Amino acid sequence: MRRVRKGFKRYEYVDRALDRFLSSIEPLDEVVDTPVEDALWRVLAEDVVAGEDNPPFDRSAMDGYAVRSVDLSSASDSNPIRLNVIGYSTTGRPFKGVVKPGEAVKIDTGAEMPKGADAVVMVEYVEEGDGYVDVYKSVSRFENVSLKGEDVKKGDVILPRGRLVSPEDLPTLLSICMEAVKTFRRVRVGLIAFGDELVDSPGVGEGFIRESNRLMIRGLLANLPVDIVDYGIVRDSYRDVEDAVSKALDRSDLVVSTGGTSLGDDDVVAKVVERLGEIIVHGVALQPSKPVLLGLVGGKPYIGLPGYPVAAAISSHVFLIPSILKLSGARGSYTYPVVRGILTRRVPSKPGLRHFVRVRVRRVGGVVYVEPIYASGAGVTSSLSRGDGFLVVPEDMEGFDKGSEVEVILYRRVVDW
Amino acid sequence: MRRVRKGFKRYEYVDRALDRFLSSIEPLDEVVDTPVEDALWRVLAEDVVAGEDNPPFDRSAMDGYAVRSVDLSSASDSNPIRLNVIGYSTTGRPFKGVVKPGEAVKIDTGAEMPKGADAVVMVEYVEEGDGYVDVYKSVSRFENVSLKGEDVKKGDVILPRGRLVSPEDLPTLLSICMEAVKTFRRVRVGLIAFGDELVDSPGVGEGFIRESNRLMIRGLLANLPVDIVDYGIVRDSYRDVEDAVSKALDRSDLVVSTGGTSLGDDDVVAKVVERLGEIIVHGVALQPSKPVLLGLVGGKPYIGLPGYPVAAAISSHVFLIPSILKLSGARGSYTYPVVRGILTRRVPSKPGLRHFVRVRVRRVGGVVYVEPIYASGAGVTSSLSRGDGFLVVPEDMEGFDKGSEVEVILYRRVVDW
Repeated sequence: MRRVRKGFKRYEYVDRALDRFLSSIEPLDEVVDTPVEDALWRVLAEDVVAGEDNPPFDRSAMDGYAVRSVDLSSASDSNPIRLNVIGYSTTGRPFKGVVKPGEAVKIDTGAEMPKGADAVVMVEYVEEGDGYVDVYKSVSRFENVSLKGEDVKKGDVILPRGRLVSPEDLPTLLSICMEAVKTFRRVRVGLIAFGDELVDSPGVGEGFIRESNRLMIRGLLANLPVDIVDYGIVRDSYRDVEDAVSKALDRSDLVVSTGGTSLGDDDVVAKVVERLGEIIVHGVALQPSKPVLLGLVGGKPYIGLPGYPVAAAISSHVFLIPSILKLSGARGSYTYPVVRGILTRRVPSKPGLRHFVRVRVRRVGGVVYVEPIYASGAGVTSSLSRGDGFLVVPEDMEGFDKGSEVEVILYRRVVDW
Repeated sequence: MRRVRKGFKRYEYVDRALDRFLSSIEPLDEVVDTPVEDALWRVLAEDVVAGEDNPPFDRSAMDGYAVRSVDLSSASDSNPIRLNVIGYSTTGRPFKGVVKPGEAVKIDTGAEMPKGADAVVMVEYVEEGDGYVDVYKSVSRFENVSLKGEDVKKGDVILPRGRLVSPEDLPTLLSICMEAVKTFRRVRVGLIAFGDELVDSPGVGEGFIRESNRLMIRGLLANLPVDIVDYGIVRDSYRDVEDAVSKALDRSDLVVSTGGTSLGDDDVVAKVVERLGEIIVHGVALQPSKPVLLGLVGGKPYIGLPGYPVAAAISSHVFLIPSILKLSGARGSYTYPVVRGILTRRVPSKPGLRHFVRVRVRRVGGVVYVEPIYASGAGVTSSLSRGDGFLVVPEDMEGFDKGSEVEVILYRRVVDW
């Protein structure tokens, strides 16, 4: 039995740590009117209901001729049917008359269907003459017609409360002509880096380290509903940490710090959080990212991440992003690009810990190979930049053998494989 | 045989269209010095080579005591070994003496290893006394020590030319203390929406449509190395289109427009591109996004996307993003979150066309179900916001049967399933 004197009494399993922390977090639930143009990457605070049908009228889905489909039932390549062209319907300038047997109206994509017509024949299938068209193809009823309300019916819920608005949602939001939409206020995230050894400037002295976690975490939170306030680098004396935590929590909905969460004399973050609030989890069974601190101060979530960038990155994905989503009111879970491939070397792991191994993926002759960068060591910062993603080894496994087919979570969006 | 009078002579296959277009695009290859802090989502124009070792010296990876491992070979829970503590090494304030037999130096994570010591015993495994520690565990040589150059060796290429800088790359860039890094100039993307029927304001009149593609495309290009210049809505008369295309191309590296690319009388974009430059592809075998125009004007890529938001979204993923990556000098391909699931309904498709079917994904009792929103109709804008991703049906298939296991490309990052 190992003698553990002042260490973490035990490491909480990752899923259980996250569950316990998330269940202590309540969504902010503050609603703001947001111009639709600014809704991207915000969370909807209401079901968005269509106020009118879309399309608001039957309209052509193609450039061509609005026709009565019955007139063309026998039309074919060898048997063109001639129709008189009695007008032109364009967007904003619909044809006001009625299409009667033997007649057609020239029509643009998006233009209102004239009365009497029930289909559109594409311009490709007609030969235009002077006041008439010869049509070489039959059409079925409503062919190439977008019917009123076919896209959206008045009263339909077209976007649900809790939706994190993606680019693909904007056309729908805009199409129903809303000026503003109710969204949840963005999460104010306070960001601190603790460490006497850290500096922000490039010309660091011997023994000092240039701080990089804040910039990385900002990037990791891109496209999430956050406003980040950067409290900079703070020395890790008890007094400095306490001041910084208090100040940041006053003005933030969630505070995330890096460094000062393990068990050395300088690691006072846990002491401060314990005094100001409560620690929910300290120490997780996540390799390499054990010294994670999850707490509540004044009812607000506090996330202390390890100082090593590799560990800070991993625990940001595992704990920070889900916590922000919960606070934001977003429904659903974060998804990552994944790829399956063949492991080029054995990856060892310690049962009971969830390992995040940095790996490179390469495609050779149609086969994807997964190459572990380094099996251990949070200190090897370059494993992040040499890698493309994480191979996650679950707690109940003792690693993966060489040649195994494994799934990789990619953290890059553009992968050179 | 269908009679095609004035239609697209043929639809170019998607892969061939993209290959032909990309092979006509040369990377911009203009290099700018970029502060490391601004390098995120830019493309590196040089191999980044480490100017020094990292760590720059042997340092402790843990809080604990720097020791001579031979002194502790017999240490255990039942047989603690007592060492005299002769000093303290902290970051920026290394211990200057030498650790001799029977001695230890208290050390912080990241601090320089004192001479004589070859391992660190974690603080958890010692009991501290007045001027001594009792150590309850043996350590192997270099245990808990980050050796000089273990992360990065001077001269190592640590980030390759062509890398689109992700958040995870920043710690490495910053750790080698660079002030600036050479990146390729961002791609200036000119954005135009063509259409007489389009308006920007929310109070649209009857027959008018609120323009939404520009906002969506801006969102789709988030986190790519672009500067977007918005040329607004332009009426689709020949003169207006020609003026807008010329103006936008003067000031951009690539112009993307929506609308005006099919074959009605108002669809003059192809005529303008043909007159000012050359058309490379007009009409692709992509459903629903056939009227795609890919051309070159003055040597610059011109991408005309269909006006329907569904089609504009799909063709942005298929043609616009790869074109921007090529211009930007980025190496690699864009990756998407994917999920496999069981199709709840048959999805029909027309052989010879690549179909992008909008689907919802839902998890019920551990099984993922893929529910097609609407099998056809670019006009059904809400299929994008009702859906979570695309089910891509390849050209050589006639759809997928109900119950098939299919792979879905998710366009949402947060999916409520």
